[in-house]
Amino acid sequence: MLQNDLLLRAAKGQEVERAPVWLMRQAGRVLPEYRATRARAKNFIDFVKNPELACEVTIQPVDILGVDAAIIFSDILVIPEAMGLPYQMIEAKGPWFEKTVKNKNDVEALHIAEAGNLDYVLKAIRLTKKELNQRVPLIGFAGAPWTLFAYMIEGSGSKTFSKAKQFLYTQPEVAHLLLEKITQSSINYLKAQVEAGADMLQIFDSWAGVLSENMYYEFSLKYISKICDALSPLVPVTVFAKDAHYAIEKIAQTNCNSIGLDWTIDPTKARNQAVTKTLQGNADPCLLYAPEQKIISETHSMLKSFGKQRYICNLGHGLYPDLDKEKVKLFVDVVKSYNWTS
Amino acid sequence: MLQNDLLLRAAKGQEVERAPVWLMRQAGRVLPEYRATRARAKNFIDFVKNPELACEVTIQPVDILGVDAAIIFSDILVIPEAMGLPYQMIEAKGPWFEKTVKNKNDVEALHIAEAGNLDYVLKAIRLTKKELNQRVPLIGFAGAPWTLFAYMIEGSGSKTFSKAKQFLYTQPEVAHLLLEKITQSSINYLKAQVEAGADMLQIFDSWAGVLSENMYYEFSLKYISKICDALSPLVPVTVFAKDAHYAIEKIAQTNCNSIGLDWTIDPTKARNQAVTKTLQGNADPCLLYAPEQKIISETHSMLKSFGKQRYICNLGHGLYPDLDKEKVKLFVDVVKSYNWTS
Repeated sequence: MLQNDLLLRAAKGQEVERAPVWLMRQAGRVLPEYRATRARAKNFIDFVKNPELACEVTIQPVDILGVDAAIIFSDILVIPEAMGLPYQMIEAKGPWFEKTVKNKNDVEALHIAEAGNLDYVLKAIRLTKKELNQRVPLIGFAGAPWTLFAYMIEGSGSKTFSKAKQFLYTQPEVAHLLLEKITQSSINYLKAQVEAGADMLQIFDSWAGVLSENMYYEFSLKYISKICDALSPLVPVTVFAKDAHYAIEKIAQTNCNSIGLDWTIDPTKARNQAVTKTLQGNADPCLLYAPEQKIISETHSMLKSFGKQRYICNLGHGLYPDLDKEKVKLFVDVVKSYNWTS
Repeated sequence: MLQNDLLLRAAKGQEVERAPVWLMRQAGRVLPEYRATRARAKNFIDFVKNPELACEVTIQPVDILGVDAAIIFSDILVIPEAMGLPYQMIEAKGPWFEKTVKNKNDVEALHIAEAGNLDYVLKAIRLTKKELNQRVPLIGFAGAPWTLFAYMIEGSGSKTFSKAKQFLYTQPEVAHLLLEKITQSSINYLKAQVEAGADMLQIFDSWAGVLSENMYYEFSLKYISKICDALSPLVPVTVFAKDAHYAIEKIAQTNCNSIGLDWTIDPTKARNQAVTKTLQGNADPCLLYAPEQKIISETHSMLKSFGKQRYICNLGHGLYPDLDKEKVKLFVDVVKSYNWTS
């Protein structure tokens, strides 16, 4: 039995004494302890594939920052790799794929990933669950099919993802074929994460914002919805579609439990658009550069807007690596010590 | 007297026979003719500073694509340069400032740009007006103060502009000092563009989307509003705040005439949020990668959503350099030959 199940109760819409708090990229470079562990791996891919190191950095923020959940340290691009499209992580540049998907043949050459292809993540989850010893829930995750697709076509990060979008416009049937393969892989992967011990799941649609509303529904949300259907009601699922301000009402119609919001979204509007769901977010990560008093007042104002129930406190995006660990901890402390009357 | 004043009438909310169409970055690499002219300059900065070459590429899309307006070829970063902060344009990377603004001393060392500092742009405008020979209106432009500020602090493009935002959170008074100087410079510059012959103006807030709603009002829209006040009613002004989906109602409260929309914005919602303004946009530039039939059907559907009056047809962002010129021309033709009954 979990000693702290605030996150799970909040996600399920059950009553809580206060909102839980965790931070996207909490297992990351903002912690000197993370950087020390990271230095013990040869490169990023080896780091991700080492269950002992992954377990270590996953637990660090629970110990150091006092967050109400751990999220397994991994990378969204493990799925493309497991499907047959390996990548490198280039320092200060981001992911890079030597081979990209260009046509139907390339899609057919990829296989649907099975749990066995991602055994190192499952091992990390089992190890972490054991080490956490029921202190807080462990979150598993995957990238949304569209976001993974975008990298598999583009071959790297991009401001516009214009190659990936060009593919949607010129080869829509092939795009759906690939999205379906990614979706099936993701379902296999996420179910295996739950079997290995993940208490909750999050789907990251990091590049939702480059699509128009109709394209988003056709090429992204449709597949996210399939994943939610396949996972429900195993564990609660959060969908975080960054910059998809237009899609909140439609995301609320999927079988997800909670919806992640970036910092451009007004909490009150989001409440009205997603009355039956829990909301997660949405402080601007840059707020944590501010003087302490500003961090406190802005966080209080955010907590007041969201209210105590059906709310998971988080940022609107991942922590930036150059943030001050003490200010990150302050944010967590402010949430936990807030006078939660409403 | 202008032979084609559709753009100006649409911007002023006067009746039109059909909506005018022009394209952001129409004077750009999508045209082989542009690339030929560009090759005659030593580098991008020399290109921008050469009124004859600037005039040439400004007129090309009017001749080749048949658009209803020309927009003077220049760069938003000429203002930082005129204030004392020079930059380079690095091939395939974007702008780069050797010196950036770090503190109050740096801000005080900058001066408010006067028209004389930007004489080469004014010369290009006068030359272009003469060469256009009243065929279509000429649009002048400037970057919004926040967007210029973001480059002046960050020193280059960025996915997050976290340094620029950190500056807002840690040195808000100094930020306002710099934003005020940029605003005064922009007013001087835009007034001079009108005196030189610009028939309309557009303010580009390219990095609006990285700010939260409240930050946007405090550090961006306040200054855009000042510029609109200073320019009104000399010529119509368009405000294009990319990704600032949350701000349309407030932009509609400024003295601008028209509001640019990116492709994530629903035309009907925008109409309701800005009833007294003309709307401009908002096709996804990637639509122009699509097969012809798709370009036609999607463009028709967009035109139907916006309707004939108070509308300027455009993309939701600039043309991408690898688009096919013929498809770009198709888009323009589709708009011009649309059966504009409503």
